[in-house]
Parts: sequence; C-alpha cells; structure tokens
Amino acid sequence: MSKNVVFGIDIGGTSIKSGLFTGTGKLLRKDEIPTVKEMGGAYILDDIRDYIFKVLKDENLELSELAGIGMGVPGSVRDDGTVNKCVNLGWGVFNVADAMAERLGIDREKICIGNDANVAALGEYWQGSGKGYASMFFVTVGTGVGGGLIIDDKPINGINGAAAEIGHLPIVDGLDWACSCGKTGCLEQIASATGIARLGGKSNAKEVFDAAKSGDAQAEAAVDKASMYLAKGLACVAGIVDPDCFIIGGGVSAAGEYFLEKIRKYYRMQVFHPSRETVIECAVLGNDAGMYGAARLVFNRISGGLE
Amino acid sequence: MSKNVVFGIDIGGTSIKSGLFTGTGKLLRKDEIPTVKEMGGAYILDDIRDYIFKVLKDENLELSELAGIGMGVPGSVRDDGTVNKCVNLGWGVFNVADAMAERLGIDREKICIGNDANVAALGEYWQGSGKGYASMFFVTVGTGVGGGLIIDDKPINGINGAAAEIGHLPIVDGLDWACSCGKTGCLEQIASATGIARLGGKSNAKEVFDAAKSGDAQAEAAVDKASMYLAKGLACVAGIVDPDCFIIGGGVSAAGEYFLEKIRKYYRMQVFHPSRETVIECAVLGNDAGMYGAARLVFNRISGGLE
Repeated sequence: MSKNVVFGIDIGGTSIKSGLFTGTGKLLRKDEIPTVKEMGGAYILDDIRDYIFKVLKDENLELSELAGIGMGVPGSVRDDGTVNKCVNLGWGVFNVADAMAERLGIDREKICIGNDANVAALGEYWQGSGKGYASMFFVTVGTGVGGGLIIDDKPINGINGAAAEIGHLPIVDGLDWACSCGKTGCLEQIASATGIARLGGKSNAKEVFDAAKSGDAQAEAAVDKASMYLAKGLACVAGIVDPDCFIIGGGVSAAGEYFLEKIRKYYRMQVFHPSRETVIECAVLGNDAGMYGAARLVFNRISGGLE
Repeated sequence: MSKNVVFGIDIGGTSIKSGLFTGTGKLLRKDEIPTVKEMGGAYILDDIRDYIFKVLKDENLELSELAGIGMGVPGSVRDDGTVNKCVNLGWGVFNVADAMAERLGIDREKICIGNDANVAALGEYWQGSGKGYASMFFVTVGTGVGGGLIIDDKPINGINGAAAEIGHLPIVDGLDWACSCGKTGCLEQIASATGIARLGGKSNAKEVFDAAKSGDAQAEAAVDKASMYLAKGLACVAGIVDPDCFIIGGGVSAAGEYFLEKIRKYYRMQVFHPSRETVIECAVLGNDAGMYGAARLVFNRISGGLE
C-alpha cells in the first residue's frame, strides 16, 4: 500500500530544517542538518538529497511514495523555481526545482520552491495562529521587519518578489538617517528590534521591553513609538488587502501581550473603520513555520489538495 | 445554433450602464438606462429585468442563450451576492443575485455581483490599460481616492470589503482637519480632486492643474504635494502586493502626463527598490470600465473562462 509522503524543507543560512509529512498533512518526523555554505553553497542540494534518501530508507519508504518536496529558500523565487541570488547561501541564479529533481531522479513537477518568509507565513497560516482564517498578513519583527501575505491559501509573491516587504514602507517622517536600502523613512528603522534598541538607548530590544515594563520613561516611549509605526504599517496593509488576521512573529514577538496591546490600540486609531476589528495575534510555530509552509506548497499543488 | 451571450451591468447612482457581450468577450451593444431611486431603489432590478428581456428580443436571442449576467453595485458585496447597504441606491441588506435570478427565471449561479470599484478595476485590467499585465492596482482619483486590486485575474475584495481603499491610508502627517471617515491624516484629504482644489486655493482641481501648468507657484506646490502623497500611497501598495502595474483613473487622471510624471518621480523616490520600475499609466475605459468588468466576472466563473 502506497504511503504517499511529503517533505517540507526550510533552507536557512545556518541550518536546514525538515519535516516529513503524511499525505494527509500529519508530521511524522522533524530533522535539522547544518547548512554548508562553502564553495558558493554548492553542497547544499547534495546534502539535502543524501538526507532525503536516508530518511526514506529509515522509514521504509520507496522513492515512488514521495508525493512531493517543498523548499523555502532565503531569496526571491520565480514561479518556475528559479532563484535570483540567495546571498546568505552563496547561490547565484539557477533553477532549484530542476536541480533538485535531477539529483533525486524524480519528476520536476513534484518540487515546489518558495521564498522563506512567504513559506513561513504559509506554515503559520496552515498549522499555526492563522489556522481557520480566510486570509492572513504575517509580520516578522526581528533585526528587520518582513512579512508574508496569504490570500486564497497561497502566498502572494508580487511581480518582483517584493510583496509583503513592509519593513520598507516609507511611512516614518522626520528620520535623519538612511535605511540599508538607501531610502529614509522606512518602517523598519523604528519598528524592528534594531530600531527599538536604538530608540530605547539599550543594547537590544529585550532590554528596552524589560525597562519599559518597569516604568523607564525613555524605554516606554520607544516601545510606544515602535508600536505606533508598526500599527500604521498594519493599517496600510488593511487599506490595501484587508486581511482576516494579522499574525506577528520574529524575535520581538516574544514581548507578547504587552507589545500586542499597544499595537492593537494604535492600529484601531489609524485604520479605516471597516477593518477596525481585525484580529492581531502572535505567531506560535517559531522556526518550524517554514517546514510546515514548504510542505503546504506541495499540498496546494497536488490536485485536490490534501487527501 | 446557440449564441451564448453575457451582460455586463454597472449600476450607478444616476444611470445603469450595460454591455452585451458574445461568449468570446466581444462587445455587441452598449446601453444606458436611468437609475430610479424612488421607494428605496425597489424598481432598479425590475427595470434591469425589463431591459434584459427587451434586448434579448431585439437581438433574437432566447433566454437559454444567456450564459450569465455580471453586475457591479456601489457598495460592499459578500461572495454569495449579498449587498450590505448601497446608500446611493437606497438599498438595504439583501441577496442581489437571488433577487435577479428570481426575476429572470434563471439559475442563480449565472449571476455574479461585485463592488463597482473592484469591477471597474477588473474591466480596466481585462480590456483597458491593465491588459497583458500579471496583476494591477487601479487608483481612482476623483472626489475621493479609491481603488481596485486585481491578482490572478480576480478582484481582491478583502474580508470586510475594504481592500484597495487607499484613500484612507493614514500617511499624511500634520493635517489639522478630519476626513469624512473620522480619522485625520487620510491620503484622500490631500490627493483627491477635493484635496487638490483646497491646497491650490481654487474652486476645483482642473483650475489648479491649469494654473500650475502656467507657472502659478501655489498651484504647482499643490500638485506637487498631492503627487508626492499619492506616490507614497502607491509605494505602500508596492511594498504590500508588488503589482505589475498601477493604473490611474477618475476625473483627476484627465490631467494626463503632467500629473503622471510627477507621480512617477515621487514614486521612484519612495518605493522599495525591487518595485522601482513598475509601470504607472492612465486608465482608458472611463465610465465603460464597470460594464466590461461586470461581464468579466461571469467569464471568470464560467468553467474554462472565455470560449
């Protein structure tokens, strides 16, 4: 009897996280292997091939029982699976789906490639905080501010792969320094971990949140300002795609309800009224979101979806 | 031999515009009938029924040859065809698709209902300036600022029907008056015809543009400010959905290249670099966009799309 399994693989700059799923979407096992970046990342796909063959053998599965492999990569990806330079892996421009299919000796149509942030958003939508909503905007607040947009069960990539890049929304007036992108006024200059640490005059965002919670006025003002601008960004998202929920992930989301309550307050003050009650919650899958989302790419492609 | 026709009907507050299309999407005829708003708009659907029967008779068509009817209405619409108060028509909450199907004695599945702005966007995408692009953001600059977003050939409505409502993006700092929505800082307070007239100190936007073109400094500053903020709104759209093109419609788009060049300049200054070269053009279908888009709703639903 055919078992029909799917791999969801999230390729990060430090490690590769993988989940093996049944055809009904149940997680069977979870693994992590190091990302070998030597030689322009030339060993990465070979290492993934070796890992897949090993797992199939461990689990007594035939290659013919492999229904598909989803992969999230740190860079922009065209619909045909071509990556356009993954700087963190050392990769140039090539078709990852073709390269992986060739290594495994399987049909190229079984391999789905997506941008890591969009794939993490899809994972959080499928099995995390976004579960049950009609659409979702996922925001990651970490070193920078990024995101992922899910409509009709699919990540929206944008024509240049730049959709959901809300860290660079030009909505902060009065900044006198430039963002790494070259512009001034980018949201992530204020609302990222980096921005919060700078505003709060501490060495990292956690220290600013801790100080704010104990009544430090500068720290509290910093958290308020970051929350206000992040909420302005979400209000812009609501005015453009009006999603069913906002899910906040990334390191800074560890600040939890204290941060969420401020974001919600400033969101309601700035958003157009039809979207005033949109849910704003924290993500729950953490670093596992990518492997879930990568698997989901395959289930989306398989005719009829999940078994 | 079956002819298979489709009506695209755009219900406005003053008149109802209709197009009769072949099954391959060719426009056969175009009509306009007045919108009778008495009695809470109770006669509107009856008038449309009488009109449809008359046209079918004129054109020697059987009711069985009617493949579908698309209708754009001025208000928010749920996926099942229920409208939630169309204030300009006097309508409350009811299912327009059911009501129309009953009046015509046809299958309810043959009737598609959409919001008028989203439907106009779809028309401009299908047969106007958006033709051939993978996705489009349509902006109408008139009394207010509105829009429509098309991804994968479909209008994105949003969970509350508020998608593409960029007139209320909270991106204008320093305003000391409120928008009709109750908030301050809404884009349309500056970038609409109303906003441009106010900034330029004239009685309408056309006078401001004419004065600006002849070197009036206040008028030129007004057009510059409106263009800069409209471009900021488009840069936010690009950072969230990264569309393949921006198409500008509405009364103010009559200002043409003079306005477009300013919008393009300020867009390139504010947008995240991957979306820097996105096309910005004027709409071409004018008031016909709605009937084209309404028909296209039907073609989208018919299995396999256009014949």
